[in-house]
Amino acid sequence: MNRERLQQLLQDVADGRTTPSDALDQLRTFPLERLPFAQIDHHRALRQGHPEVIFCEHKTVEQVVGIASRLATANGAFLGTRATAEQAKALVAAHAWAEWDPIGRTVYLPPDPEPQPSGGPVLIVAAGTSDLPVANEAATSARALGLEVERLTDVGVSGLHRILAEEQLLHEARVIIVVAGMEGALPSVVGGLVSSPVIAVPTSVGYGAAFSGLAALLGMLTACASGLTVVNIDNGFGAAVAAARICRTPAPTT
Amino acid sequence: MNRERLQQLLQDVADGRTTPSDALDQLRTFPLERLPFAQIDHHRALRQGHPEVIFCEHKTVEQVVGIASRLATANGAFLGTRATAEQAKALVAAHAWAEWDPIGRTVYLPPDPEPQPSGGPVLIVAAGTSDLPVANEAATSARALGLEVERLTDVGVSGLHRILAEEQLLHEARVIIVVAGMEGALPSVVGGLVSSPVIAVPTSVGYGAAFSGLAALLGMLTACASGLTVVNIDNGFGAAVAAARICRTPAPTT
Amino acid sequence: MNRERLQQLLQDVADGRTTPSDALDQLRTFPLERLPFAQIDHHRALRQGHPEVIFCEHKTVEQVVGIASRLATANGAFLGTRATAEQAKALVAAHAWAEWDPIGRTVYLPPDPEPQPSGGPVLIVAAGTSDLPVANEAATSARALGLEVERLTDVGVSGLHRILAEEQLLHEARVIIVVAGMEGALPSVVGGLVSSPVIAVPTSVGYGAAFSGLAALLGMLTACASGLTVVNIDNGFGAAVAAARICRTPAPTT
Amino acid sequence: MNRERLQQLLQDVADGRTTPSDALDQLRTFPLERLPFAQIDHHRALRQGHPEVIFCEHKTVEQVVGIASRLATANGAFLGTRATAEQAKALVAAHAWAEWDPIGRTVYLPPDPEPQPSGGPVLIVAAGTSDLPVANEAATSARALGLEVERLTDVGVSGLHRILAEEQLLHEARVIIVVAGMEGALPSVVGGLVSSPVIAVPTSVGYGAAFSGLAALLGMLTACASGLTVVNIDNGFGAAVAAARICRTPAPTT
Amino acid sequence: MNRERLQQLLQDVADGRTTPSDALDQLRTFPLERLPFAQIDHHRALRQGHPEVIFCEHKTVEQVVGIASRLATANGAFLGTRATAEQAKALVAAHAWAEWDPIGRTVYLPPDPEPQPSGGPVLIVAAGTSDLPVANEAATSARALGLEVERLTDVGVSGLHRILAEEQLLHEARVIIVVAGMEGALPSVVGGLVSSPVIAVPTSVGYGAAFSGLAALLGMLTACASGLTVVNIDNGFGAAVAAARICRTPAPTT
Amino acid sequence: MNRERLQQLLQDVADGRTTPSDALDQLRTFPLERLPFAQIDHHRALRQGHPEVIFCEHKTVEQVVGIASRLATANGAFLGTRATAEQAKALVAAHAWAEWDPIGRTVYLPPDPEPQPSGGPVLIVAAGTSDLPVANEAATSARALGLEVERLTDVGVSGLHRILAEEQLLHEARVIIVVAGMEGALPSVVGGLVSSPVIAVPTSVGYGAAFSGLAALLGMLTACASGLTVVNIDNGFGAAVAAARICRTPAPTT
Amino acid sequence: MNRERLQQLLQDVADGRTTPSDALDQLRTFPLERLPFAQIDHHRALRQGHPEVIFCEHKTVEQVVGIASRLATANGAFLGTRATAEQAKALVAAHAWAEWDPIGRTVYLPPDPEPQPSGGPVLIVAAGTSDLPVANEAATSARALGLEVERLTDVGVSGLHRILAEEQLLHEARVIIVVAGMEGALPSVVGGLVSSPVIAVPTSVGYGAAFSGLAALLGMLTACASGLTVVNIDNGFGAAVAAARICRTPAPTT
Amino acid sequence: MNRERLQQLLQDVADGRTTPSDALDQLRTFPLERLPFAQIDHHRALRQGHPEVIFCEHKTVEQVVGIASRLATANGAFLGTRATAEQAKALVAAHAWAEWDPIGRTVYLPPDPEPQPSGGPVLIVAAGTSDLPVANEAATSARALGLEVERLTDVGVSGLHRILAEEQLLHEARVIIVVAGMEGALPSVVGGLVSSPVIAVPTSVGYGAAFSGLAALLGMLTACASGLTVVNIDNGFGAAVAAARICRTPAPTT
Repeated sequence: MNRERLQQLLQDVADGRTTPSDALDQLRTFPLERLPFAQIDHHRALRQGHPEVIFCEHKTVEQVVGIASRLATANGAFLGTRATAEQAKALVAAHAWAEWDPIGRTVYLPPDPEPQPSGGPVLIVAAGTSDLPVANEAATSARALGLEVERLTDVGVSGLHRILAEEQLLHEARVIIVVAGMEGALPSVVGGLVSSPVIAVPTSVGYGAAFSGLAALLGMLTACASGLTVVNIDNGFGAAVAAARICRTPAPTT
Repeated sequence: MNRERLQQLLQDVADGRTTPSDALDQLRTFPLERLPFAQIDHHRALRQGHPEVIFCEHKTVEQVVGIASRLATANGAFLGTRATAEQAKALVAAHAWAEWDPIGRTVYLPPDPEPQPSGGPVLIVAAGTSDLPVANEAATSARALGLEVERLTDVGVSGLHRILAEEQLLHEARVIIVVAGMEGALPSVVGGLVSSPVIAVPTSVGYGAAFSGLAALLGMLTACASGLTVVNIDNGFGAAVAAARICRTPAPTT
Repeated sequence: MNRERLQQLLQDVADGRTTPSDALDQLRTFPLERLPFAQIDHHRALRQGHPEVIFCEHKTVEQVVGIASRLATANGAFLGTRATAEQAKALVAAHAWAEWDPIGRTVYLPPDPEPQPSGGPVLIVAAGTSDLPVANEAATSARALGLEVERLTDVGVSGLHRILAEEQLLHEARVIIVVAGMEGALPSVVGGLVSSPVIAVPTSVGYGAAFSGLAALLGMLTACASGLTVVNIDNGFGAAVAAARICRTPAPTT
Repeated sequence: MNRERLQQLLQDVADGRTTPSDALDQLRTFPLERLPFAQIDHHRALRQGHPEVIFCEHKTVEQVVGIASRLATANGAFLGTRATAEQAKALVAAHAWAEWDPIGRTVYLPPDPEPQPSGGPVLIVAAGTSDLPVANEAATSARALGLEVERLTDVGVSGLHRILAEEQLLHEARVIIVVAGMEGALPSVVGGLVSSPVIAVPTSVGYGAAFSGLAALLGMLTACASGLTVVNIDNGFGAAVAAARICRTPAPTT
Repeated sequence: MNRERLQQLLQDVADGRTTPSDALDQLRTFPLERLPFAQIDHHRALRQGHPEVIFCEHKTVEQVVGIASRLATANGAFLGTRATAEQAKALVAAHAWAEWDPIGRTVYLPPDPEPQPSGGPVLIVAAGTSDLPVANEAATSARALGLEVERLTDVGVSGLHRILAEEQLLHEARVIIVVAGMEGALPSVVGGLVSSPVIAVPTSVGYGAAFSGLAALLGMLTACASGLTVVNIDNGFGAAVAAARICRTPAPTT
Repeated sequence: MNRERLQQLLQDVADGRTTPSDALDQLRTFPLERLPFAQIDHHRALRQGHPEVIFCEHKTVEQVVGIASRLATANGAFLGTRATAEQAKALVAAHAWAEWDPIGRTVYLPPDPEPQPSGGPVLIVAAGTSDLPVANEAATSARALGLEVERLTDVGVSGLHRILAEEQLLHEARVIIVVAGMEGALPSVVGGLVSSPVIAVPTSVGYGAAFSGLAALLGMLTACASGLTVVNIDNGFGAAVAAARICRTPAPTT
Repeated sequence: MNRERLQQLLQDVADGRTTPSDALDQLRTFPLERLPFAQIDHHRALRQGHPEVIFCEHKTVEQVVGIASRLATANGAFLGTRATAEQAKALVAAHAWAEWDPIGRTVYLPPDPEPQPSGGPVLIVAAGTSDLPVANEAATSARALGLEVERLTDVGVSGLHRILAEEQLLHEARVIIVVAGMEGALPSVVGGLVSSPVIAVPTSVGYGAAFSGLAALLGMLTACASGLTVVNIDNGFGAAVAAARICRTPAPTT
Repeated sequence: MNRERLQQLLQDVADGRTTPSDALDQLRTFPLERLPFAQIDHHRALRQGHPEVIFCEHKTVEQVVGIASRLATANGAFLGTRATAEQAKALVAAHAWAEWDPIGRTVYLPPDPEPQPSGGPVLIVAAGTSDLPVANEAATSARALGLEVERLTDVGVSGLHRILAEEQLLHEARVIIVVAGMEGALPSVVGGLVSSPVIAVPTSVGYGAAFSGLAALLGMLTACASGLTVVNIDNGFGAAVAAARICRTPAPTT
């Protein structure tokens, strides 16, 4: 039952063509799908303020280009993550203004004009240069979600002075996303320095006992600094959405 | 080098007893520990606004009581987590106003008067009654961190109507902590319904292939709803601190 | 919005106190919880025809007895699984007709009169005597679900003639539940002998590389006989419910 | 001893050429292989009503084509699963009526005429589009097994309204196969909505902590909805056979 | 169909009461269970020449004593493994000649007279004193299986001279069972010194990364000495049976 | 100290050039390497009666060909395992009589004349055709070790009659090597049928929860049939050497 | 052949009772055990300069006391690790001067007089108070090994200033043992601050995803600071021995 | 605040332009980054005496060549590890004196003149030829760190005489790095023979249950020889740095 049919039913009641009791029966047995969920969902999309995202992995070039075109037409923007070079080139060929980041494997077509970022600066910290693909994915995703992004790179715990030297930057961030592979210790250090939300992203960087990110994941989950939260291995996009959930919700008016 | 010694050094330069060049050498090789870090740390404690917490596991009754007394004297408050019945009874015997929650295994001595909670309501959702110990730990911790707490219990995904019936409550929360064991699917459902921050806490509830919380942990990390974050298994306290990090930081004034 | 409020709204439309358009707005934004889900749920419970089940693990004796009494009053029946001796004795003390199976750790109060089992015989096969606790839990659960139960015990694959000697019994079953620990090979053998549904239940029986049921679980999932299905380790109750899902649904009338 | 030799032995007894005692000795020591097992097996094949299936993985193109031709000659039908593009093209080249599904990686030569499906509709639900390869394998396998197939796609739990909107379809199915990767939560939701058999198929979709389907597998095994059963990761074919085991067995005539 | 019924059928054919064709039908459809498998099994037991064994774990004292008494009556001997002190004391109380080994957790009632061991000496090597429980279980089991047993203890690889000093003993053994925990390296060393069969038994001795025997198990499976074989963790009994399989089979007469 | 130097020392003692006491000191402090271990090792090689084996994996074509040529010159024979097609072709090009088995990935140059196999027939059983690579490696290795080899293929437990039909062959074998992937249940069945040594080889065949052979490995280690032994995943060569250890050692003359 | 027999043989050669050639034969076939290895081993013990150590776990009180008494008589000293309270009390009852550390679970009877420690200070750093048991075991073990010990406690990475404040102490140590549980990040930080040897000891402290020390172990193995080494989980004794290996070997005189 | 700014501040105090009190305030609130950490870090590099190292994995050829050129200019030396053939060829093309080891995958440009190695011989032991890549990486890294390197190869525990024959070499080493795959038992044997530091490097050599180095890693961590330390799987470079930490630190002058 879409809006039209529901309106009709109520009109029928108003007009006496249907008794309240009959209408009640119809409403009670309404399959849930008849409720205008699509709109509700649409509302949620509006609230979150971000264009739909194309997870390009396991998709063909044709599929990716097709979805992107549909999104570009509807929203004037799209974001593709985990794009191969071939997918990316096809997307850029079709959308001249799309920006391809080969390291972060993203292709982003920003809306025109791109809205002013809001919600406070999100600081994306990468422990090492090998963590850049994930950090870049997080950064582009955060931008596409309308957030203001700051960056800090190569500040791993084996040279503490590097992160300590940037303590001011850490304190000014609304949310900090810390991307680290190997032993994944950087979020623990950052979490001990600031009281703001810290989202840890383990990466699959490292070999041997890193076990494709397992070491970093477990390390972050068991971090001795309290109140860190963790997302899936290599999930820069997820971290950005988590940051958006924090930044975009209006603080309560107490 | 503490403040006094640093002051002396500078006075010596001012007085000509030490040349700038000699002072430079001394400062360059200053061990870092001479900087007044303790104060900085103190500031951080003040900023986070919460009393120190006693993790009672693996501590003797005497140790727990001793630490609690010191905290009670200093702050007029303390929170003990993972307390055994024996530890709890000793704490309550020593501090008549301390509140023991045998399910959540917490003992909390609130400050008097207890400050007004602030930062927006934190909603703590427990999938099943078996998840109550962790949910209670989160709730008491959140209260001790000065947060306003709402509760929702026994709303697992095998009976969807239970969580759907509370959608209003979900939408009103500033942060949602979802506590679930077994397959840990509830955060994914909640994350799809709201756009606010969702912190997922896997519990060790379940048997067999639940593998002491591993199933729930992996399920939450790979949730198809974007932007969820996860803390350690059974870590209700950590989830509360994560919520406090989100709620207590003033939103940027853009 | 419960039935009464919905009825009122429709009456208001019929009476002209509310315009169809206003009613539409109210219905569109109806929180889902206002729909009479409880009844739907109730319908589901009726359809599945089984009393509610008490998972006794991690519950206090008082909690277990309390829930059981409520169920006994409402349904004249209850089933408790994973009951300790202490819980069981308290249940039997409170409900003289309740039957305690110390091996299967179940306490079952059958309805009086107990309905005739239906849906075809469910054959519960236990590879070894050590698998009896799980097989018994499955058997009592199946009985409580209104199913007819046959049993076969100690027919592991290291003595093939034992299971081959019972091939007739295997062929006559509507559903076969195969309970096995250690290497969990029995379901594969049974699945190769019959074409009916086979539900495999790995048990935590075995030591060392059995890894608390992991060996049996993986063995059953990778069984070379096609079309076996698997439930959680030691989950005799779950297997019984799965059997009931198969037996109680009326076959389509084609 | 095949049928002929057994017949001869009995004739010898009847004719007095062999004493009953000698015949007894021969029968007692008969190697089991002398019994006409092949026929019994043949009966089983007939009972299950499905053509033999070629698991193409790890086979050469020549092997696959050779087996398929033999099956096509014998049965006028074959089903190849996990076929590479190269294998598939060779099969289609050799059998013009064979149907290749590049997503599901199946090649199916249906019998001519294809028999009317029976046993009730099997509903195959895929959580996301990435789960389509496994869902398609299940669908084609179910069709080859003579089952009637319905489909539902992209109804993951992060947007609950999508599955709720199809509740009617869920209720009408004889068996539901739910294919899901990542956290694998969809079967739990579906299992809570219906009382019919639900077969969960974890897929290797997802990255990081999905650990190639482990997260979904554990999630499904520990699902809080009772009575779900699970097959191996990515095993769409196995799920279809499990569904056939349920649908093809005549319900008992009570 | 037992021997009697089969004999009757053949007599009926001989007497003309049954035609060969009718007898054929009966034999063809004989359920396999009608064949006198029990005897065949009995033959196998005789061939292996060992009394039945009681795995005491998870059994009550009553069950253990009951089974043992039945075996003692039938065979004049029994072997109980993994016996608790309580079980052992009850067995010894009931059978004065039974021998309890509290370290190996076995209770053995030898036949009277105990037969002469045969099949060549089996050498049981324990890496450390902590491996003695498993080595003892293997030794008593081997004795009960009629094997001649030699022992060597505390010859771990961290002091190579200890095992090298016993090279003569190693060369004289028919089969060597090597019991080792922690890194499980001893079998690799022994396997490099001798050309006879080496059966490696990982034990759960060790802590931390020993992971209850996993380290030793993996180490033995990947040993660089060729031709070692491995049994389950802590499975001294299984190693003894494997040795008996090697020693008791007559070498071929080529 | 090689033989010559040791002879010289003793001659010096005999000639009075060295006192026994001085000689004792020299011998006591002899570095162990001075003992003629190489010969002892040579003896061992002779005892085991097999040519050296080239594990080709991770070696260059040049290395493989070089080692093979050296072995061919020394022994007139060699065995290469895990050979790539490229390596194999180079070996056959250099040694015209070498035999390449592309399925088992072995290249074997038999000695001329090839000695009569001895030690009793080794039966190599492969559960499915996908297990043939490992079974073939075992077969060629056993042949190169001088053993007589019998084969049995595609007799998995899902069609029990296939293995039961070959019971005679099973009973006649001196040693049985059972190669199986997926759930690895076949060794348990075979071990229950015979009393001779059974060596189980798990293969990496299977997908999903087979976890590259882990399921089969754990299944074999926990098999309910007693006295099975297990080698590494896919280690056909190791199983053959284990069989040779059993067959080549003269049975004790008791 | 012990020293006496070897001396006799040489005397026989000197006396002409044995020819050099015969003696050669005897020596060539000497089982290795005839060499006076025990002494060599004794030398090694002397070189390492530490009393033998009793690993008390899994030993009875009687066994522990017995071994300790033998060691006390021989060396005037002993060290027991992993002692239960019961074992410790028995040891102290028997040896009045023995020192029991209930936290580190060690009982140490120092030699009288206790030698001056040497080899440079070993700094034992514990991340948290929960790591004290392992740190204490390391400290007492190091003392028993004759090393000079410094301590630093509760300097985890979540409060960086604590470890930075002690940089001087870090720089002065000859070897640093870093004991840490949970995410095990402290060694990485320490390793980045100093250039001396750092031995990391993961502890089983932490819950949930700490998985009994696995998280810390993997974290330390994959630490981004180069040149850290790791010992087994909770292995304080092993870390002390590793430190002794570093400190006690004379630096080469280049 | 770099050196210049700090000097200026002190000069201002000396000149009376700034009071000591104001300078104190500035120094107290100095963000830590203002301290001349780079120099301190530089000091550490100098102390460790090794050129910076390029971890080539996951870097493009351009990146690798660029970093190498910068290092060559600054230090006249560089070391690249884990270099692909393409990266290596580009490096050698750009730096004619660079030495490429295709087995160890290193490219090393030594300083000219190369300094005399010091700190005592580091002995690098490889269990098998398959372990050479990791052993070579360790050797080249040790050379680049200024250490004297000895080598020993193919001395695995399955032929003990090989390692025993080199006992002298083992005793002369300052530090021993033992590289081994499969069961990783060699370090345990070596650790039992010497009292000097032993660093164990597990390699990913082996198949099946070697699980990419896990078996060797666990074996080394649980080695029965005390005081071994372990680095990450395949981490030859890390082992070399650990050796340098031991060798380069001056022994204390007690």
